[in-house]
Amino acid sequence: MTPRFGERVRAVLREHGPLCVGIDPHAALLAAWGLDEDAHGVREFGLRTVEAAVGRVGIVKPQVSFFERFGSRGIAALEDVLAAAREADLVVIADAKRGDIGSTMEDYARAWLTPGSPLEADALTVNPYLGVGALDGAFGLAEQSGKGLFVLAATSNPEAEEIQRSTTRGGATVSASVIAEVSARNAQVIGEGEWGSFGFVIGATVDWAPTGIDSFTPTAPILAPGFGAQGATPANLRPRFGVMSNAVIASESRSILSAGPAGLAEAISTRAAQYLEVTSV
Amino acid sequence: MTPRFGERVRAVLREHGPLCVGIDPHAALLAAWGLDEDAHGVREFGLRTVEAAVGRVGIVKPQVSFFERFGSRGIAALEDVLAAAREADLVVIADAKRGDIGSTMEDYARAWLTPGSPLEADALTVNPYLGVGALDGAFGLAEQSGKGLFVLAATSNPEAEEIQRSTTRGGATVSASVIAEVSARNAQVIGEGEWGSFGFVIGATVDWAPTGIDSFTPTAPILAPGFGAQGATPANLRPRFGVMSNAVIASESRSILSAGPAGLAEAISTRAAQYLEVTSV
Repeated sequence: MTPRFGERVRAVLREHGPLCVGIDPHAALLAAWGLDEDAHGVREFGLRTVEAAVGRVGIVKPQVSFFERFGSRGIAALEDVLAAAREADLVVIADAKRGDIGSTMEDYARAWLTPGSPLEADALTVNPYLGVGALDGAFGLAEQSGKGLFVLAATSNPEAEEIQRSTTRGGATVSASVIAEVSARNAQVIGEGEWGSFGFVIGATVDWAPTGIDSFTPTAPILAPGFGAQGATPANLRPRFGVMSNAVIASESRSILSAGPAGLAEAISTRAAQYLEVTSV
Repeated sequence: MTPRFGERVRAVLREHGPLCVGIDPHAALLAAWGLDEDAHGVREFGLRTVEAAVGRVGIVKPQVSFFERFGSRGIAALEDVLAAAREADLVVIADAKRGDIGSTMEDYARAWLTPGSPLEADALTVNPYLGVGALDGAFGLAEQSGKGLFVLAATSNPEAEEIQRSTTRGGATVSASVIAEVSARNAQVIGEGEWGSFGFVIGATVDWAPTGIDSFTPTAPILAPGFGAQGATPANLRPRFGVMSNAVIASESRSILSAGPAGLAEAISTRAAQYLEVTSV
């Protein structure tokens, strides 16, 4: 039996440490790598990043918009990148931030989380603005296939505060309410002591106090952008995430990718070692 | 000079009335139409719907998830549907509900709103959970190209209330705050008396009072799902939307599409006439 996604991430974090390499072929990086700004360029960029990541980290996170920008050809390039990463046994998080209701949401989940689907990933980032309950079809499909979801809870960009720190009728912040609702769904399906497969996006630069977020159970993976170019460092991980630190997936993109194709493998190794130093206590 | 998107919608609503045909090739409808559940099936479904819509309504709204489900081939099918609809001079709203920050959000906007892009549409639905400010790159790109955006403000599904009716620090609901922030952006770019190009998604079954939404200025198009299968009827349009009624795009999908390929054109004509009756006063 395939292990649940949460348990798979737990094992991968223990083996490789928290670093996750973002695959973000935006225009400036394509130019810096000497690649064309087209579907061929993003395919090459993605495949080379996967190649450099294998054996050095356990998790990669392609950013879908940089592929979608080139339409069906860009999406075909992404299919090749996803397949290469999964063949190499990397955990692949498709950062697509999809969010809708009912059968529409289910078809997004089918696209990204169905075994054998051309866009198959191991997990998908999703947006709860239409309600955590609107994502139920996706929770169900993920659970059936041993896949994961990362629900946007508290993102690190300053413009996010207006909505994410608003107060729900129950008195919690939106961020805390999302975490509570998703955690309840984890608790329904996992066994005693297991990690949930429905994780969260919580930015590494987010100060937890004003968000109303506290440590939560069951433990579930925390995808944390904000490390690297956005300012957080490996040394910030434990102070920022406290008792939840072991569940953190520290995502870096530009800070690593700007090493270029020749320096990439070394940049990944160096950074992965820095994270291992602060997290393996 | 191309007219702004808001002004184009205003003219189209005056000419054709509010009905917008949703292009939603989900599994049950594909089966009912005798089409295969694959990229070829969704392409056929989309092209036939466009053909039936031409001359009968002014606006169509393809639901992206039903195409994305089939990966790059499904997206290639969607490209053909978008191109056919735009060639026929229909206003095409890509219902993709994208939402991200910075350059990532900009590349979503580039994908869907750049003239000449394979996925070019006239407008895109976007999700403000990461902050209306996080969408600024998309507002800028849309304005440059004469395109539009529809920001999710108050959706009609009951699970949406938890977040969308939360209270922001300023004391408004999230829905009302989104409308105020986006309206301020419309006011910055349009001329006196013009309609804004940054519209809203407000469900037709949403009761405005508890959402804190009131009539707003500048006028901007309101994309209103919830008509048809979800329960709202043409007769509900004026009572529900009041002084904003002339700006409403009434989106129906299943209620029309279930007529099947043979009955589709007639179903569209009949329904369009019912809307014209209640809106042309």
